[in-house]
Amino acid sequence: MFQSQLQDAAGLIEARLMEALADAADQPVTHAMRYAVAGGKRLRGFLVIEGAALYGVPADHAVHAAAAIEAVHAYSLVHDDMPCMDDDDLRRGQPTVHVKWDDGTALLVGDALQTLAFDLLADPACHPDPGVRIDLVASLARASGIDGMVLGQAQDIAAETAGRPLTLAEITELQANKTGALIRWSAEAGARLGRADIAPLSSYATALGLAFQIADDILDVEGDAEKTGKRVQKDADAGKATFVSLLGLDGAKARAHALVDEACEALAPFGARADILRETARFVIARET
Amino acid sequence: MFQSQLQDAAGLIEARLMEALADAADQPVTHAMRYAVAGGKRLRGFLVIEGAALYGVPADHAVHAAAAIEAVHAYSLVHDDMPCMDDDDLRRGQPTVHVKWDDGTALLVGDALQTLAFDLLADPACHPDPGVRIDLVASLARASGIDGMVLGQAQDIAAETAGRPLTLAEITELQANKTGALIRWSAEAGARLGRADIAPLSSYATALGLAFQIADDILDVEGDAEKTGKRVQKDADAGKATFVSLLGLDGAKARAHALVDEACEALAPFGARADILRETARFVIARET
Repeated sequence: MFQSQLQDAAGLIEARLMEALADAADQPVTHAMRYAVAGGKRLRGFLVIEGAALYGVPADHAVHAAAAIEAVHAYSLVHDDMPCMDDDDLRRGQPTVHVKWDDGTALLVGDALQTLAFDLLADPACHPDPGVRIDLVASLARASGIDGMVLGQAQDIAAETAGRPLTLAEITELQANKTGALIRWSAEAGARLGRADIAPLSSYATALGLAFQIADDILDVEGDAEKTGKRVQKDADAGKATFVSLLGLDGAKARAHALVDEACEALAPFGARADILRETARFVIARET
Repeated sequence: MFQSQLQDAAGLIEARLMEALADAADQPVTHAMRYAVAGGKRLRGFLVIEGAALYGVPADHAVHAAAAIEAVHAYSLVHDDMPCMDDDDLRRGQPTVHVKWDDGTALLVGDALQTLAFDLLADPACHPDPGVRIDLVASLARASGIDGMVLGQAQDIAAETAGRPLTLAEITELQANKTGALIRWSAEAGARLGRADIAPLSSYATALGLAFQIADDILDVEGDAEKTGKRVQKDADAGKATFVSLLGLDGAKARAHALVDEACEALAPFGARADILRETARFVIARET
């Protein structure tokens, strides 16, 4: 049930992204953009769609904002994989964009995918009320820029030259920015589309985002490169502090479970209608990729 | 008069950009963002402010959109200068961001400056009407993404491997995307802020944008690296087709003058109130940097 709903949403989102790129000029950078946005779990887009459903916004309306956050996520992966950042050759089991094309193309692909995200949100199809669309633009800019995702990436780079491993408080803040901000935006977008209070979904997503990152650190230790489709053990190899190095494997798992409980409790106002978001939270720490 | 108005606008725009970055975390990437947005002629921002003035929008209102386009321009320069693109060490007479910091920082600086542009446009201070703000966001996304500036950059890269120099029609289209789209957006933004028809300013800016690029090609041949603050003769050294190689130096100058006349004619509906924009057009082909 959950898996099939996740797949249905992924199909909708991918179709919206491909539609947005359908008329783009026939250039390597356009082909690389389609390659970069194809596949993936679409967890962030799914959160938009399921959050919106709680407020009566149908999936074919929420799909525009869902596609926007997946475009930002894809841009961040393409740029992160570049040699001047993480220098990764493999993503979702496929060669990364700079490996399949080149660094210049990867740079432009990421740049244009970020732009595409704002284009998707500004499209009247996203929401008939321009006030809602500009609210989505403003909040996405905050979540992804120097006060959000990019700040987290900068903190991650700074940590490498700090000469000491990060503390638990520092790594929690770093991850709240680096991965948490986009996850939070995704869940909150549903309430924004429904012109409702974002607080309940915000609490849910804050706990979920941290659980997601702890699960990522656990996967980096326990994961299988064949299943995850990316390099594993890279944090341990790099001697970086992670939730696993700070809390131990069992401690990290216990913390992830506690955060999932916390995320589920934040959904109490919605009753059983939010069961799919509860399943999403459990999926986040049980996933193998 | 013209120079002092350009400088006044530049001061307003720089102040708005620095204000936007005032509360950013103390990280190298934040310092590098401030460095990247400092200085420059602010021609694009000036077009926003002077275009808006034609519709009675005061400079302290138009400055937000002006700062946004300068943030996009700065992002494009930082990414363009990177080793995987043009590999330039010098910009406005100063070391480029990837030289002064490193490639990873330059990547994040460009990414966050693009985000900042949409943040500035989404801010209620930009315009009280959310419909105007979302119109600015949508049009900027079109101008800067895969249908605009990034397409022009992709066409520029493709030209290098085409095995033959570009034709005049091809280079005109390339430049209309690569540099023309942002210049057009800048002038049109004034009409958008005034909720007016963008057609007159659009015609003005289309001619101006092409004149600007022809002047750039002339500067690349005749310019002085000390005055321009960047490497000259780089297109000729690279054997790239330019307006000068296609039209000859005299032919390029004649074309630039004709385009300036065309730009000025498009301002006829505004009478003498548009004299400053006429001076701007003449400045664009007379500048030494």
